Amino acid sequence: MSQPRIRLGMVGGGTTALIGPVHRIAARMDDRFELVAGAFDSDPARGREFAATLRVASERAYGTYEEMLAAEAKRDDKIDAVVIVTPNFLHFPVAKAALEAGFHVICEKPMTTTLDEARALAELAKRTGKSFVLTHTYTGYPMVRQAREMVAAGEIGTLRRVEVEYLQDWLATAVENTGSEGAVWRTDPAKAGQGGAIGDVGTHAYNLAAFVAGEEPTHLLAELASLVSGRSVDDDAMILMRYASGAKGAILASQVLPGNGNNLSIRIYGDKGGLEWWQERPEELWFTRLGEPRQLLRRNGAGATAAAIAGSRVPAAHPEGYLEAFANIYRDAADALRSPPGSEFIPNAEDGVRGLAFVAACLASDRDGNVWTKIED
Amino acid sequence: MSQPRIRLGMVGGGTTALIGPVHRIAARMDDRFELVAGAFDSDPARGREFAATLRVASERAYGTYEEMLAAEAKRDDKIDAVVIVTPNFLHFPVAKAALEAGFHVICEKPMTTTLDEARALAELAKRTGKSFVLTHTYTGYPMVRQAREMVAAGEIGTLRRVEVEYLQDWLATAVENTGSEGAVWRTDPAKAGQGGAIGDVGTHAYNLAAFVAGEEPTHLLAELASLVSGRSVDDDAMILMRYASGAKGAILASQVLPGNGNNLSIRIYGDKGGLEWWQERPEELWFTRLGEPRQLLRRNGAGATAAAIAGSRVPAAHPEGYLEAFANIYRDAADALRSPPGSEFIPNAEDGVRGLAFVAACLASDRDGNVWTKIED
Amino acid sequence: MSQPRIRLGMVGGGTTALIGPVHRIAARMDDRFELVAGAFDSDPARGREFAATLRVASERAYGTYEEMLAAEAKRDDKIDAVVIVTPNFLHFPVAKAALEAGFHVICEKPMTTTLDEARALAELAKRTGKSFVLTHTYTGYPMVRQAREMVAAGEIGTLRRVEVEYLQDWLATAVENTGSEGAVWRTDPAKAGQGGAIGDVGTHAYNLAAFVAGEEPTHLLAELASLVSGRSVDDDAMILMRYASGAKGAILASQVLPGNGNNLSIRIYGDKGGLEWWQERPEELWFTRLGEPRQLLRRNGAGATAAAIAGSRVPAAHPEGYLEAFANIYRDAADALRSPPGSEFIPNAEDGVRGLAFVAACLASDRDGNVWTKIED
Amino acid sequence: MSQPRIRLGMVGGGTTALIGPVHRIAARMDDRFELVAGAFDSDPARGREFAATLRVASERAYGTYEEMLAAEAKRDDKIDAVVIVTPNFLHFPVAKAALEAGFHVICEKPMTTTLDEARALAELAKRTGKSFVLTHTYTGYPMVRQAREMVAAGEIGTLRRVEVEYLQDWLATAVENTGSEGAVWRTDPAKAGQGGAIGDVGTHAYNLAAFVAGEEPTHLLAELASLVSGRSVDDDAMILMRYASGAKGAILASQVLPGNGNNLSIRIYGDKGGLEWWQERPEELWFTRLGEPRQLLRRNGAGATAAAIAGSRVPAAHPEGYLEAFANIYRDAADALRSPPGSEFIPNAEDGVRGLAFVAACLASDRDGNVWTKIED
Repeated sequence: MSQPRIRLGMVGGGTTALIGPVHRIAARMDDRFELVAGAFDSDPARGREFAATLRVASERAYGTYEEMLAAEAKRDDKIDAVVIVTPNFLHFPVAKAALEAGFHVICEKPMTTTLDEARALAELAKRTGKSFVLTHTYTGYPMVRQAREMVAAGEIGTLRRVEVEYLQDWLATAVENTGSEGAVWRTDPAKAGQGGAIGDVGTHAYNLAAFVAGEEPTHLLAELASLVSGRSVDDDAMILMRYASGAKGAILASQVLPGNGNNLSIRIYGDKGGLEWWQERPEELWFTRLGEPRQLLRRNGAGATAAAIAGSRVPAAHPEGYLEAFANIYRDAADALRSPPGSEFIPNAEDGVRGLAFVAACLASDRDGNVWTKIED
Repeated sequence: MSQPRIRLGMVGGGTTALIGPVHRIAARMDDRFELVAGAFDSDPARGREFAATLRVASERAYGTYEEMLAAEAKRDDKIDAVVIVTPNFLHFPVAKAALEAGFHVICEKPMTTTLDEARALAELAKRTGKSFVLTHTYTGYPMVRQAREMVAAGEIGTLRRVEVEYLQDWLATAVENTGSEGAVWRTDPAKAGQGGAIGDVGTHAYNLAAFVAGEEPTHLLAELASLVSGRSVDDDAMILMRYASGAKGAILASQVLPGNGNNLSIRIYGDKGGLEWWQERPEELWFTRLGEPRQLLRRNGAGATAAAIAGSRVPAAHPEGYLEAFANIYRDAADALRSPPGSEFIPNAEDGVRGLAFVAACLASDRDGNVWTKIED
Repeated sequence: MSQPRIRLGMVGGGTTALIGPVHRIAARMDDRFELVAGAFDSDPARGREFAATLRVASERAYGTYEEMLAAEAKRDDKIDAVVIVTPNFLHFPVAKAALEAGFHVICEKPMTTTLDEARALAELAKRTGKSFVLTHTYTGYPMVRQAREMVAAGEIGTLRRVEVEYLQDWLATAVENTGSEGAVWRTDPAKAGQGGAIGDVGTHAYNLAAFVAGEEPTHLLAELASLVSGRSVDDDAMILMRYASGAKGAILASQVLPGNGNNLSIRIYGDKGGLEWWQERPEELWFTRLGEPRQLLRRNGAGATAAAIAGSRVPAAHPEGYLEAFANIYRDAADALRSPPGSEFIPNAEDGVRGLAFVAACLASDRDGNVWTKIED
Repeated sequence: MSQPRIRLGMVGGGTTALIGPVHRIAARMDDRFELVAGAFDSDPARGREFAATLRVASERAYGTYEEMLAAEAKRDDKIDAVVIVTPNFLHFPVAKAALEAGFHVICEKPMTTTLDEARALAELAKRTGKSFVLTHTYTGYPMVRQAREMVAAGEIGTLRRVEVEYLQDWLATAVENTGSEGAVWRTDPAKAGQGGAIGDVGTHAYNLAAFVAGEEPTHLLAELASLVSGRSVDDDAMILMRYASGAKGAILASQVLPGNGNNLSIRIYGDKGGLEWWQERPEELWFTRLGEPRQLLRRNGAGATAAAIAGSRVPAAHPEGYLEAFANIYRDAADALRSPPGSEFIPNAEDGVRGLAFVAACLASDRDGNVWTKIED
């Protein structure tokens, strides 16, 4: 017998939003959720109109998130969780209010715009006992999970070096001046936070490095740049990292390098082997044991680990992608909401805090002349 | 305002089925359908139990498809369409009954096990005015649709040669003797039809060739083989094709070549250019204008055609895959069911007939000593 | 102590020739040969002038091959071998005269323009006891040799299917009408032989298939086409092959498919595994054992076989290419000339006969309506 | 009429040497050089014996380089240039003596073991008027030269970022303790210089960055590591770079990352486009104009620049590789020796000085706590 669907109320994600539809598809993919309420737009009327296109009942199409939380709290069939897909600066107030109102939270990254907010939120989540799921999409890819499991199983030996790149080119020109809504808020420190590329894609990269390595660096050294002139936040960043174990790492995060679409990759090496993965060809994980031929591991294929199999819906060589990775986060979230704390794979409030600690350390290191800076924990 | 969801009743697709879950995810992806009824299993009790896991109401969990059609026909909230995901030999009786009962049909390929059945079904669909959607998945890939549009727009010039390969290795050993349910019926002529590989993957390949070329061959020459000894149907087939225009084509369909997962590809060349696509890296379409550098076109990226954009849910470089391709078939089907005949991209009963004509011609050519054989239309 | 260099006299390979310089570089690469004589051009004066650019002594720069053979035969420091790099129709008379004059022969493919000539030449080589080396370049690639050794060692099990493609696009338009010298003779049956693409690239493909499989097919079925209108020879050919063992094969040889440079590939599958190689990325050999991950074997890297190591000059990942493959043929030829018969890897007169038997069978099969035709041996 | 061959005397490159044979093949490839003398080994007897295998006349097989320089200076047919392929610490004394004796020098990188030596040598080269060619192999690749020309022609616009990686794994274990001769001297500061990976592969990477960008960075920040414990020199290095123009750069040089053979790559981005090249697939250069599809440029193919064509021996898609790249350096060197200064593409003494300045700056930056350090010029 199937369990009832988890009821979601969404904040943000209206007409022009990019990530809102992704959340809705991901939530729907495995039929564990239903979207029953929402405050989809900063313009209440537009939000309500949009809600109708999603078959959200008109009485649950709210003008503001405050309104939604208040009204839902009183319903018998009230929502279980709030999905937050607004610009960054709203993550904190919405999540805070949602947790305080007794709802679970599923929130876009970065968790907040400052480290203090992130810590406050993590604290609040702990106090309320509610789940806080941070949608670090890329940890949902089966081959990323397989990489994590292989590293944990000692397949590459003692960690030597982690290289993560997250390269895009959609901000290669000043599109924020020509009307791209997503670019406008992402390059506005008041809305996105002080970090530009480091917040938008750098936090994904940092999280991916930690997720796969199973280890956090202790210090970093960052050089931030705004390669498009006139931009108020960094759009290009190189970050060096040090691990307590002596291992080294680097993150290159840039949104201004022509020819890069969503070119996220991780390469991780130990003394016994190496693993390499590129998000744009997510079904393929390269594995080499030192001195042996390179192997191309494929999702749900020969050599698949438990998590990679669990995270697969279709057989090997029937490509799954970004939406399925995202749906894996939701699937795990469903399990976690029903029986906390859920899978080790779910990015949570602690990960969110670490993401903001990363951003804070990057900003400090760069401000102080690219010096080694402790990543606070 | 959103339209109500189309109501589906599914036949087949129970516990151990492979393609049933794929249809359910694809149908759900864009929220245009809901699964409300089903006869999921040849064992009625097991089917009803399974229905519960899908949240299908117990009174709509039927023991047989006949029961379902009869009961649903009387309901006010009756299903709109029947989804057929049974072994091949049941496609015909189920589809026939469904069409006669006034329901639309969404059916797995191959349409039937014989050309006569296929023709009868196409005739019936025409007579009843109901939609018949054949789920030739691969036509749902945005880059396949883009290839079709580019060929139609003259980007490769006059057609010279089409090469399609559909290579797998899951039947490389006699797994039908060791319990693989899918292998058992697929290698049993009574259940799968006389064609083995030519029916199971060859019809996909043939359909893909026609879809992209925008042209059907008139004759073929086929050599079929059962490379795994003791097998009752072909598991490896090479087919040469001739087009009225003088163009040439070939299909290699094999399920016994180690190292091939679901290696479907199409390469199509004209006098001005060429296009190449591999299903295992579905986001990438190679395009070369004669005398110019090779270009790597990506879904929803620079140079995207209308259909590729329409078939995309997320930006370029956020990989979509097999499930999204499948969902594109469902999305188009939804449009077509609401306002027939719908998009040119939907594989329909005519395509089903052509698929069986292809199988029939392959069998005849091979039986007669690999001679050129007219593909009936 | 090093042995003295083998002395070469070249016929053809003058100013505008493409393959002449390749032979000279290949011969020079490992310092086992020196070019000391030549009749480089059908125009004697131009040939002598060209000889000077190669530092060939003026008295050994001959006007014709007959002149060269006569004069060299009388010298104490006479040439050891004649290199034939003329258009196809001259291979026979030059090789015949050279063998009769007591010289070894290194000859471009196809060996001759007819099967009768090829047989006569093979007979003559046997009678004279002289070496006849046919420069089937592609057998010189280390990874091709490794593939042959792996097949012979049973790594892929019992042969199932061999797929060879040799695709180009340089004849995609009627360049023979616009002055390309190479195209003029290659599309003229009087100079190239009756086979166009089947002779020019098809014989390479056929030889490669046999070289790697270690087995010759017994029958073939060919469909030849001249896809560029007005052309007197085939420029596109699809050939099916049957092996005595029951294995299947296919060759696609075409010179008119836009986007293909020198796209030669072989994929060979048995019941236990598969191997795949593309000439344009010659350092990489894909190997899959059924049920295991795909492996990327690299020249001189992990898993290298004896022949691949012997055929390497530099470490793995320092790319070797076409010229080194060609030089491997020359290197083996040097060994063979000194101590016949030399390595199993050297393409010889028997291979040449088989190449022409292949061409003859293709022409016969096509002429008779694409029927199965015995490949004479 | 051909010019006489340039006569070479080689120092080092005896029996077990890796790079000696590469130089000899490269020098021979285009027939512009002949090796007539040498002091091939630190053990004179062994060196003379080895010379015989190269057909070097016994009276020109010298026991030491001093002997060679003295004897050759007196001959009428004396050598034109000295090729230095010894361990690093001998580059300086041998080159100095050779220049002073009036010979041109062709020398392996790094030029010397210290910046002072490098400057002295550059000064000496200038004073003597002799050519000093530094064999930075990778600048010999046609697609690298094409990248340089495209950058210079403004194809990528204003420089934003250069990423160079040079990754290997042959030092992933302490092979210096198990007898690898190359590893022994390369990890011995007395023989290799203070820089390990930064000297051995880092200088190549730095040179490549400068060669393609057409611009030198002014400052760098380096973090060096010895990831294999007990090693006396760095085997892993991350270097950040700054250009006067505001552009950024990074070099990752490591010899201890499993799965990397000779994985040198450069990716260079401007405000209008990007170029990407991997040494292990050297025939392919990826080019993207911002907002357009990615293009795969191939050596000697569509879009080839003058230098790429000039640096090609065979048509596109007939792979050239490492030896041909090396031969391009020699070919240019031949031209330069005959009519100085020769091509802009030849790495010279100035490049050598910059390489050592790079090493010195890396060592200083790392020693001082990974701080920005001026690269001296």
